[in-house]
This record gives sequence, C-alpha cells and structure tokens, in this order.
Amino acid sequence: MTASSDKTRVLTGITTTGTPHLGNYVGAIKPAIAASQDPSVQSYYFLADLHALIKCQDLKRVQQSRLEIAATWLALGLDTDNAIFYRQSDIPEIPELTWMLSCVCAKGLMNRAHAYKAAVADNEESGSPDPDRGVTMGLFGYPVLMAADILMFNAHRVPVGRDQIQHIEMARDMGGRFNHLFKGQFFTQPEAVVDERVQVLNGLDGRKMSKSYENTIPLFVSEKKLQKLVRKIKTNSLEPGEPKDPDTCTLFQIYSAFASVEESAAMRTEYENGIGWGEAKNRVFEYLNAHLREPRERYQALLEDPAHIETVLRQGAERARAEAAPFMDRLREAVGLGRFV
Amino acid sequence: MTASSDKTRVLTGITTTGTPHLGNYVGAIKPAIAASQDPSVQSYYFLADLHALIKCQDLKRVQQSRLEIAATWLALGLDTDNAIFYRQSDIPEIPELTWMLSCVCAKGLMNRAHAYKAAVADNEESGSPDPDRGVTMGLFGYPVLMAADILMFNAHRVPVGRDQIQHIEMARDMGGRFNHLFKGQFFTQPEAVVDERVQVLNGLDGRKMSKSYENTIPLFVSEKKLQKLVRKIKTNSLEPGEPKDPDTCTLFQIYSAFASVEESAAMRTEYENGIGWGEAKNRVFEYLNAHLREPRERYQALLEDPAHIETVLRQGAERARAEAAPFMDRLREAVGLGRFV
Repeated sequence: MTASSDKTRVLTGITTTGTPHLGNYVGAIKPAIAASQDPSVQSYYFLADLHALIKCQDLKRVQQSRLEIAATWLALGLDTDNAIFYRQSDIPEIPELTWMLSCVCAKGLMNRAHAYKAAVADNEESGSPDPDRGVTMGLFGYPVLMAADILMFNAHRVPVGRDQIQHIEMARDMGGRFNHLFKGQFFTQPEAVVDERVQVLNGLDGRKMSKSYENTIPLFVSEKKLQKLVRKIKTNSLEPGEPKDPDTCTLFQIYSAFASVEESAAMRTEYENGIGWGEAKNRVFEYLNAHLREPRERYQALLEDPAHIETVLRQGAERARAEAAPFMDRLREAVGLGRFV
Repeated sequence: MTASSDKTRVLTGITTTGTPHLGNYVGAIKPAIAASQDPSVQSYYFLADLHALIKCQDLKRVQQSRLEIAATWLALGLDTDNAIFYRQSDIPEIPELTWMLSCVCAKGLMNRAHAYKAAVADNEESGSPDPDRGVTMGLFGYPVLMAADILMFNAHRVPVGRDQIQHIEMARDMGGRFNHLFKGQFFTQPEAVVDERVQVLNGLDGRKMSKSYENTIPLFVSEKKLQKLVRKIKTNSLEPGEPKDPDTCTLFQIYSAFASVEESAAMRTEYENGIGWGEAKNRVFEYLNAHLREPRERYQALLEDPAHIETVLRQGAERARAEAAPFMDRLREAVGLGRFV
C-alpha cells in the first residue's frame, strides 16, 4: 500500500449543466471510474458547480444536473472510500485561492484563452461594435478558478481533452509564478494527460454525441425511452440481406463501445451477413438495456434519496477540506495574511 | 435603541500596505471613529488585506501593516462592541461571493475601471507594445471583490473619495443584475457618500500627505522622531518678527487640523504678529505630542500584545460571519448551489 502522500494525485472536474449521456459514459465516466480503482493513485473528482454559473442562470437546471451527475457516478460504482468525491462549492478555500492566484496571474494570459478569444471572434463576426459583448468576468477569468481547482490539491495529473491543455499550462504558469514570488515550493506543476484512445461516441444524427447538438442518448432513461432513442439512430437505406458497413455505422459504434471484443466481432459478421436495421437496433437496445439495467435501478434509488447523496458529498468535502484548509493556512502565511500569533 | 436590522449600515475598508500617518488620521480615521459612535448606525470596518495582495508581494509589509492599522484604530478608541471590525481575509464568504458576482459582471464594466485605464494609459505612454503590461487579473478585477465587500453586508452607505464613486456604481450594477437574474431582492443598492468637508492634509514638502510622495508624518512615531519630522515641514524664508500667512502654511494647516477653533484663531494671531518658524514648529510639535501621547502609549502596548489584537479581530470576524454565512447559504440556494436536502 502506497502512503497517501506518495500517491500520484489525479484530478477531474465534472461540469454540472447537463444530464449524463452515453457519450459522457464511454468517453469520461467509465475510464475515470476504472482509474479511481488504481491503488497507486489518489483520485479527486468534483462537481464543478462554480463553473456552471458562468453559462447557466437557471437554478433548477444547475441543481438538477448536480444531483443527476452525483447519482450517476455513484450508481456506476465510484469507490468513494478511495476517491475523494466532492462539490466544488463546498470548498470555500477554492475561491480564496482563486483570488490569490488572480494577483499573480497576468491579464495578458487570459486575453489569450481559447474560450474568450472564441467569444470575441463571434462578436467580431456578427459585426458587434463591442468585442466583449456578452462576456462576463466569469467567462474571462475562469481559467484562474480552474487553476485553483488543480493547485489546491497539488494534482500531478489532470486528464483532459486537447482543447483543455491550455488551461493546465495556465495553471502551471500561475503556480510557478506564486512559488517564485513568495519563495517556496507551494505548488506542484500539474501535467495535462490527453488519452488519445478515449472514444468519442456519435449521437443520433451521426455527429459527435453532445448536449449542444441535441443528439444524445441519456445514460439512464427509462427502458421504453431507451428503445425509442435507439430506433432513432440514423442508419442508411440498405435492405435486410444486403451487407452493411459496421465501420461507418453509429449503431455499431455505440454497440461496440459497450460490448466485448468477441461480441463486437460477432456483430461485425452479422453486418456482413446483411442483418436488417430493425433487427440490429433491437439487438443493440437489448444489449444496452441489459448492461444499464442494474446501474439504472441504483441511479433511480439514489435520486429518490438525495439525503444519502448529500451525506456522501459532505464526507468527500470534509476529506478535501482536511487537505485544503491547512494548505490555505500555509498560503495565507506565505503572502502576509497569517494570524498575528 | 434602533433594532440592528433597521440601522443604517455603513461600510469602510482600510487598505493594508502602509503605516497610518497624520493625513490618514485627519482625513479618514478620526471621522470614521466618530461616525461609529452614532447609535443609529451599524458600522463595518475591515482591513482590506485581500486587496493588499494586488500591489504588494512583500509578506512582511502586508503583515506589519495589518497589525499597525488594527493597533491604530483600537488605540484611537474604535468601539468594537458597537462597530464590527474584521479582517477581510477572515471572511471566506467574500471570495465566494466575488466568484458569484464575476458571473453576472460584464467584462466591459471592468474595461472602463479607472485604475485599469490608468495602467493601460501608462503603458501606452511609455511605448509598450502590450497595453496590459504589468496588469494582473487582481488589478483588473478588484472592483468585483470590492462589490462583494459591500454587497456581502448589504451596506447602505459607503464613505469614499471622489475617485472611488465608480466602484460603488459598479457594485450597484452587479447587485442589481444579480437581483434581476435570480429573481429576488438579495442585495441592497449601496450609496457612495462623499464628504466634501474631509480635510486633506499636506505633507512635509507641502504636497498632499501621501505614502507615495514619501512626505508623511506617521501617526505614532516616537516623540523624538515626531519632533524631527515637524522641524522638517517646509516653510519659507521669512524671519522672526515678519508677519506670516497661515493660509498657505502646511505647519498651520496641520496644527489647525488638531486644534480647536479658538486655538487655531490664537495661532493665526501669532502668525500675524511674526512668530519665528522655530518657535512655531516647537509649538506645533508640543501640541501634537500632547494630543498623541496617550493613544501612542496604547498603540505601543497593543503592538506588544498581538494576541489581543488577534482576539479582537477574530471576534469581529465571528460577528461578520454570523451575517455572511447564512446570507451566502441563501445566495447558493438562489443560484442552484444549495444542499440537496
């Protein structure tokens, strides 16, 4: 058993403005839960609910999404004795650290952030006289909050998509600058981990499955709804008996993301043998449904017991704060905000 | 006796990067302490030590300044049973609220802030290719922190200098926008109070007394040092016996800021009668010294007992948090970050 302090610390934030779908599961949730079972790793998973406020002023959506995401991760077997699972908004040290990092973060760094630049480009394209139209200080400055999320727990590794690498570089910049200015090794330099093998699942219309395309299959819809959605997956007009190409088929892609190598190979043969689309969809639905039935039952039970979810997240927050609070005391001392005795 | 909730709430932040001088005393500390004794007012005074991090990376200076300022206000008789006196950094709800307000604050508002615009103008003047050179996110975004300082306690009135009126307007903007977006009367609209009668004291060289001009007379220097500094106050070359103009004289200005109307009138006659500069300086020194001796003794005793100051500020923080913590719970509920049960 590795001592906690020697373990590699891996941190993952989960945005809380939507309902988890099959694409989230295959691309992020499943590998993260698997990784959390590695005893040489200390995993930190958090509901990034302060980030949710940047784009969402719908309190019910934020609240419901937090509950659904927590229930999803727990239903799928996240080991909360091992991993530290918490809500960002339960850790007051994070906004405190955000302010401290703001004071060492060059504004120029934020001027170059992708999300901000994209917003400015949109405004320019639409002919707005104000390049900052619709940009809040939250949107402009959120990489500082993200740096605080990461540096607060001195995470070594942060699994991210390609578009997020810049955020980790910014966190390195702020942490390094703080270390330099206040003359100490306060912060570890985090590393972005981009897993090229991560599967990107397609959605109902064949494009990447994404909330913004409204083409998702939510992970824990009812059996009936799941069947209906699988039937809506876009296929082509080939008749039963005609050979079909599994490699360009969203239905096959979704199936093989869940099935074993052998099962996928068998389905591939069925495609070559000309399985009909109706039959193939039934098979995929049955397979998914069998796979998801148990966690769906756990998910439904969890949603009916928010008090239990609350307790689990509070316990996670306590563990997180047991690290964050003394660390923040040390940081306060370092910048001249310590106690007088 | 007015119920606490009916009282006018007046809030004043004290920047913590310097040592209090006679100019601070006359212009800010003395009137603030007098105002705090009004029973119809609930005063909030805080050491704005999170703001200090924007411009000061010298931990000892920040720490020492916090201690000196707290000792100064207590030595001068701030009634901490009445007024709520706390360190900003002891209130974790303030950076939390800062983040919430960031998400409703247009970046364009900060683009127009005086301090930021002045920094950009300096860069442009010096021919820098980067208008944001040397500007941190702390400097750029501090009006949001200031809005959180004010809105956290729903202050009605914020005494400020002319150059600060914009900050209060920005706080009104953020508070109003939050109220609108989240459909409630969460925040009071604060009002800037500019007291045109506030005296601006001149310093040793005849310019406004200010840390940045290095022309200050610290409030609680030793008797010997005080005498030396008063002797350094710039006068003109008129000889003893020649009539002197009190109205253009820094020495007279400083004297009359402390003396009664009658005492000032008597000194004015002495000027007309040609008092010598040496004699006048002795008289002013004696007067200041007599006036400051007692609080200086209390100040020295307080500086030797930082544990006492710590206790007083902790008690102030507890009173402040007794308001801030439940209010923040309400705000979290309002934006969708409430507890699940």
